[in-house]
Amino acid sequence: MPSFHLPEDQTVRVSADELLARTARLLRAAGVPAADAALAADGLVSADLRGVDTHGVSNMLRWYLYMYREQLMNPTPAWRVTRETPATANVDSDGGLGLAVAPQAMALAIEKARAVGVGVVTLHNARHLGMAQYHALLALPHDMIGVCLTASGPYMVPTYGRDPRLGTNPIAVAAPCATEPPFVFDAATTAIAGNKVTIAHRLGVPLPPGVLAEADGTPITAAIAAPPTYTRLLPLGSTPEMGSHKGYGLACVVEVLTNLLGGLTFATRLGRTGHNHCVMALDINGFSDVAEFKQTMDAFVKDLKATPPAPGCERVLVPGQPEWEAEQERRVRGIPLHREVVAWFEQAEAELHV
Amino acid sequence: MPSFHLPEDQTVRVSADELLARTARLLRAAGVPAADAALAADGLVSADLRGVDTHGVSNMLRWYLYMYREQLMNPTPAWRVTRETPATANVDSDGGLGLAVAPQAMALAIEKARAVGVGVVTLHNARHLGMAQYHALLALPHDMIGVCLTASGPYMVPTYGRDPRLGTNPIAVAAPCATEPPFVFDAATTAIAGNKVTIAHRLGVPLPPGVLAEADGTPITAAIAAPPTYTRLLPLGSTPEMGSHKGYGLACVVEVLTNLLGGLTFATRLGRTGHNHCVMALDINGFSDVAEFKQTMDAFVKDLKATPPAPGCERVLVPGQPEWEAEQERRVRGIPLHREVVAWFEQAEAELHV
Repeated sequence: MPSFHLPEDQTVRVSADELLARTARLLRAAGVPAADAALAADGLVSADLRGVDTHGVSNMLRWYLYMYREQLMNPTPAWRVTRETPATANVDSDGGLGLAVAPQAMALAIEKARAVGVGVVTLHNARHLGMAQYHALLALPHDMIGVCLTASGPYMVPTYGRDPRLGTNPIAVAAPCATEPPFVFDAATTAIAGNKVTIAHRLGVPLPPGVLAEADGTPITAAIAAPPTYTRLLPLGSTPEMGSHKGYGLACVVEVLTNLLGGLTFATRLGRTGHNHCVMALDINGFSDVAEFKQTMDAFVKDLKATPPAPGCERVLVPGQPEWEAEQERRVRGIPLHREVVAWFEQAEAELHV
Repeated sequence: MPSFHLPEDQTVRVSADELLARTARLLRAAGVPAADAALAADGLVSADLRGVDTHGVSNMLRWYLYMYREQLMNPTPAWRVTRETPATANVDSDGGLGLAVAPQAMALAIEKARAVGVGVVTLHNARHLGMAQYHALLALPHDMIGVCLTASGPYMVPTYGRDPRLGTNPIAVAAPCATEPPFVFDAATTAIAGNKVTIAHRLGVPLPPGVLAEADGTPITAAIAAPPTYTRLLPLGSTPEMGSHKGYGLACVVEVLTNLLGGLTFATRLGRTGHNHCVMALDINGFSDVAEFKQTMDAFVKDLKATPPAPGCERVLVPGQPEWEAEQERRVRGIPLHREVVAWFEQAEAELHV
């Protein structure tokens, strides 16, 4: 899958620290308290650092500011636990940005996992939480495996169907290694994340086959120019013949564990501004010796990396490796922002008087 | 994805009760105690009833008997919990058939979920557990969501790789509805389950594109005749362009939560007779009101079924619906077994003097 990287001549490099400070300042100017603004900015810039440009500042921040301005998102959520057991909780997010509320829900899941081995927390009445892996990764310093599932409004067309019924519904799972970079899986259950269509359009690069459906639901199996907007994403697997019912089914699973379990709702009822989530922490020590687990993770990851490549392929990557490599480069060289994004930033700062 | 149904003229219909009794008898003759034989037979015949022929008696029983005969599987496992917290446990399966041990591990997960909201149990030193959804479904009568993950030896070629490194690693998630049939997702993280290649070969039907890789790892993107055996299955997503890194990454996630977390091993170390598992039960009541959840599940499922079909498509199905429909038909008309399977059954019964 192409990663749609920005051409160097259209970009400006900005340091993570600068981007963090300016992002937090804009969020504070939109009414977000300092602690929440810092949390949310960290999540956003973490996406930019890790090369997940779809979920970083450039793609998401203007939408968040729009949501605050239109009162579609609550800058000062009084989130609270509505139901709780030793290993579970359901959180009413009070319409707050997921990037600020979900890390606090993950902290609760981690606390539960430390006490009883596992913590699972659903978040309802919630909003976008940025890059799902950010939340899963929070479990790793506690020697835990982290999971984050998040449901969006309807963009995915079910296998054999005409109209969108499900979100892109990403799944993120992160696990620690001993000396290797962390294992991080993070992927939408659509063939590609919706934001990639937007970015491909901005860059003028074509979309690969099997990404979008026609207006009548028919899968588009040729490469096409990226449209400015999209309403019908195909599930992972793309066509019934190639197993799209699996991507569709995985999206349903995310729906059940987020929208249904915590929010008693589903994508077509939720609309396109709502998001519901589920975060989970599993204490490795509840199953096996932590040091041995991490050493075996190292061996597992090295075994995968050592797979001889197929003809024409450079190397076999492991989940989390592209993000880790991007982060090493961007911490040194800065985060590449499209000139148009830099201009938007300056304009937003002027408008919000920061 | 074609379901490879047997042509009627090559099949004999056998009642579920008869198949259950004969399967349990064969397992007992192989040294399995009566209670375990009954459990394992129930799991196997449940697959046949639900139309999951790949994981039923016809495909699996002869392999299980071979494993007992060659002492690759322990008919009388003294399985035990090696590590435990209120919400977690790790079970040493003592080389016992997963179909007999995993339901008991799921019972433990359910007990933990009743006590603290969630139960997660890994099984190591384990063997094949049949159809993953069987175990996930055990949670539903307890008003819980059930999950079952299982890892096999190396058959999947990683994206960009030449050689197999991961199992087919299915994921099963089941959730109860109020009046609709249960929601059941159950799918390998390969484009198709390995057993389907075997069945396609037996039936002489072609494989769809995007299922197997060439010996050098190159994805085969045309329909081909099903070979008698296979060594290189493609991940869900089939090619890098269509998102095969997602199927590959999901297989890694299953690997982490089964082989790594419980067994401190991974597919290429495990070999092709070992299997490790993870079962999970989530108490719905730990998150939301159970009756409201089930009613919302009904509405969700009905909303999906009511999606207008794309041109040339009959209807939109929901996960678990094909299995449920097969079960209604097969409970009445019996389970269709290939004539060759019936002959094998009679021969095995003669050899084992039952």
